[in-house]
Amino acid sequence: MAQKDGSRKDADQDTKGITIKKVEDMPEWYSQVCLKAQLADYAPIKGCMVIRPLGYALWQAIVNQFNTYLQEDSVQNAYFPLFIPESFFSREAEHAEGFKPEVAWVQNKDDKDGERFAIRPTSETIMYDSYGKWIRSWRDLPLRMNQWCNIVRWEVQDVKLFLRSREFLWQEGHCVYATAAECHKETLHYLERYRQIAEDLFAIPVLLGLKTEREKFAGAIRTYTIESLMPDGKALQMGTSHDLSQGFAKAFDISFQDKDGKSVLPWQNSWGMSTRMIGALVLTHGDDKGLVLPPRVAPHKVAIVPIIFEDKKAMIIAEAEKVGALLKEFNPIVDTRDEYTSGWKFNEYELKGVPLRVEVGPKDIEKRQAVVIRRDTGKKDFVPLDRLRQHVADVLEQMHTDLYAVAKKRIDADTLTVTDFKAFEKAIEARKMVYAAHCGEDDCELCIKEKTAATSRCIPLDEKTAKPKTGAKCVHCGKPAKYNAYFARAY
Amino acid sequence: MAQKDGSRKDADQDTKGITIKKVEDMPEWYSQVCLKAQLADYAPIKGCMVIRPLGYALWQAIVNQFNTYLQEDSVQNAYFPLFIPESFFSREAEHAEGFKPEVAWVQNKDDKDGERFAIRPTSETIMYDSYGKWIRSWRDLPLRMNQWCNIVRWEVQDVKLFLRSREFLWQEGHCVYATAAECHKETLHYLERYRQIAEDLFAIPVLLGLKTEREKFAGAIRTYTIESLMPDGKALQMGTSHDLSQGFAKAFDISFQDKDGKSVLPWQNSWGMSTRMIGALVLTHGDDKGLVLPPRVAPHKVAIVPIIFEDKKAMIIAEAEKVGALLKEFNPIVDTRDEYTSGWKFNEYELKGVPLRVEVGPKDIEKRQAVVIRRDTGKKDFVPLDRLRQHVADVLEQMHTDLYAVAKKRIDADTLTVTDFKAFEKAIEARKMVYAAHCGEDDCELCIKEKTAATSRCIPLDEKTAKPKTGAKCVHCGKPAKYNAYFARAY
Repeated sequence: MAQKDGSRKDADQDTKGITIKKVEDMPEWYSQVCLKAQLADYAPIKGCMVIRPLGYALWQAIVNQFNTYLQEDSVQNAYFPLFIPESFFSREAEHAEGFKPEVAWVQNKDDKDGERFAIRPTSETIMYDSYGKWIRSWRDLPLRMNQWCNIVRWEVQDVKLFLRSREFLWQEGHCVYATAAECHKETLHYLERYRQIAEDLFAIPVLLGLKTEREKFAGAIRTYTIESLMPDGKALQMGTSHDLSQGFAKAFDISFQDKDGKSVLPWQNSWGMSTRMIGALVLTHGDDKGLVLPPRVAPHKVAIVPIIFEDKKAMIIAEAEKVGALLKEFNPIVDTRDEYTSGWKFNEYELKGVPLRVEVGPKDIEKRQAVVIRRDTGKKDFVPLDRLRQHVADVLEQMHTDLYAVAKKRIDADTLTVTDFKAFEKAIEARKMVYAAHCGEDDCELCIKEKTAATSRCIPLDEKTAKPKTGAKCVHCGKPAKYNAYFARAY
Repeated sequence: MAQKDGSRKDADQDTKGITIKKVEDMPEWYSQVCLKAQLADYAPIKGCMVIRPLGYALWQAIVNQFNTYLQEDSVQNAYFPLFIPESFFSREAEHAEGFKPEVAWVQNKDDKDGERFAIRPTSETIMYDSYGKWIRSWRDLPLRMNQWCNIVRWEVQDVKLFLRSREFLWQEGHCVYATAAECHKETLHYLERYRQIAEDLFAIPVLLGLKTEREKFAGAIRTYTIESLMPDGKALQMGTSHDLSQGFAKAFDISFQDKDGKSVLPWQNSWGMSTRMIGALVLTHGDDKGLVLPPRVAPHKVAIVPIIFEDKKAMIIAEAEKVGALLKEFNPIVDTRDEYTSGWKFNEYELKGVPLRVEVGPKDIEKRQAVVIRRDTGKKDFVPLDRLRQHVADVLEQMHTDLYAVAKKRIDADTLTVTDFKAFEKAIEARKMVYAAHCGEDDCELCIKEKTAATSRCIPLDEKTAKPKTGAKCVHCGKPAKYNAYFARAY
């Protein structure tokens, strides 16, 4: 079927298996994994993607876990309009400037003064207009709200599934506080929540840090970020938390009466995390056979494949069903389909990243055992049925730990500490992340970007790591260093 | 703060309580309940609304329950783009014609041939384009997919919170089958799911029926609907399920190879339910004090209010906390706040529709009891603490049954069977729903609408109720009747 866009890349469902190695051409490998594992597809609209059920299940896992966190943190979900009047954007000057190039506009045919509406690229302005109406007194604070929604950033031309597209799904939290201290504390707390999602759910090790002035959110005084390094040497920003101070409160007339009856400007933060997290998962854990799903997010943690011999078919299938019942808590697929061979099924579940495959054949049944194969290592265990449930639980837990450790080891190995710019350039060329002292000057940072295409990713949150050694010089300009930071090319 | 739209209606948070009776001016009463119970607010954009946390919690209750049904029904969640190329709309002629007036357009600045993109008013076309790529063989069927998303219908000018707005949230299911019989069976099954949401979760009695040709979905051969009658005598469509037959399959080149290798056109259905359901809940159950939440959807089923006397304050608060622990499964609010009086709290939880209020005062503590007050009836029970948990569970269950029964009784009383058009007109003028025989002619139905502003709501799904008596004549034109149908003015 003819496509306006992306037809070159369309998944050919008849061609099973990834045809290129991850190290050989990571963009092509990545695209094949997303398409063939049926995580996503290209849409017939430039820059857009379709999230298929497996991709959506991973997003749902994030939503579920994060909603649990939100409840613990007394953040309430709400929903604000998709459309934002143009006049709202201009109220906070830096914000307006920052988002201008990204916005898609709808012209309201009926509106006499011809105001245009932006399709939300982020919702600070539309939400804070309501906040201005709702917040009256200290009793209304803290106000903590979150919304799950779609976001449009129109400037994207060339879609990278999950990583970069005109439309994506995200959550955006927006809180208002009576004091700067409370605001600052919780800005960091939500960053910690993102770390939990990345590390504890997705098994992706991340750096926690502060963005430089150049890289911070338009309208924030400080932007905190979690970043990870992908196997192609590019950094990926996976969640940000912004201390907005009082800029938006001023622009949107948000104030509250304190206990003494005085009108006071409140402090605000905002924080977001998107479907991009799924791209990070594919890049971090995937291998030449396809997707590898960390156990805690895998919708099916186990695929049970009966090894069918025609003369014992009914018995083998019945046994596979029994094993399925035994492993019910892991939401197993019990694949008793006749129209596919066992070999086809093995490839299918490897491609789709199911953490464990359990084989049940005639010999296994005789021996009252099953064969358990790990997706990440290929390690095969012959496990007595009466120990199977516990074995699967243990291996899944171990697999999370191992996936994290493997990624951590790679990232550590790919992060180089350098003290001179020649080494800096060489490291970036070799697709490494660089840890180096910097003067903190905007011009110097821009100059580094122009020379190497690397941007500052973050100043480590950990104070010891951020603090330059006594007398340390900027890796680029040689002036006295202000902080240590991570630099890399980025998605 | 100045608003472009809706400022007249903005909630004044300092004015507690509904200032008008439900029967006196239902639109004004409805708006006050939505605003003052903080379900929703008007947005600063014409025709749009903000869904506040309490409103969103009701939507989340629907999402959670419906996702459970979807899992039982093997329907998978996915996400398709917000934007639809203009050319897609023209492919299915009836569909294009039907949705034309409702669409908001974005002009793609970069696209050379200047194609416009619709902001989805429904997603048949964008989804079925992908289906055409994905479906190859009988093995791929049935394909059952759903998405939760925002929908834009731009023609709305005057927002009615939840009931009618430019943007709303919904789910849309889209399935593909190898046979017409399977398609038909499941089209009705999803209608039954909507009945479950309305009746079993929201305690709103509904009619199940078939839309007439005039009222069906643009592109369907048959549209099934659940409808309820609101207390103002207007019918509300609350969910629809469409048998699309093969029209879209033809238009979007969806075909599959059957087991004999022949290329066959599949059958399709689509079905949707939206945040409108929340409007139905407010209208059906609300009273002069505000919102009444059916227990199964109430985020907090109980509000515990300690009756504080200064000299025993610590003891009373401690006791209220204990009662809170006892009733933990009902997610209680334990309102120990000092800055509000008990009376203020009573009003607050009545306004917000919390199903049960539990009072804990010094005398109750002495008697080892609590006072339980039902939101709907005001009935007060003095309940020994050792029976409290069970009592609350029982009363909540009873409250669901009672709310349903009260609504059912009203709807039955407001539904009149008529056989002549004078009685028809009189009943509609008196804000009733009419059950009458009809000839089935489109012109005749249009004529009724022009004369009375009533539309045919549905032909009952129940065959006996739908079948006209032998020799029955059309209530309007006197020609032989084809079926019995319900007529009413509608939202």
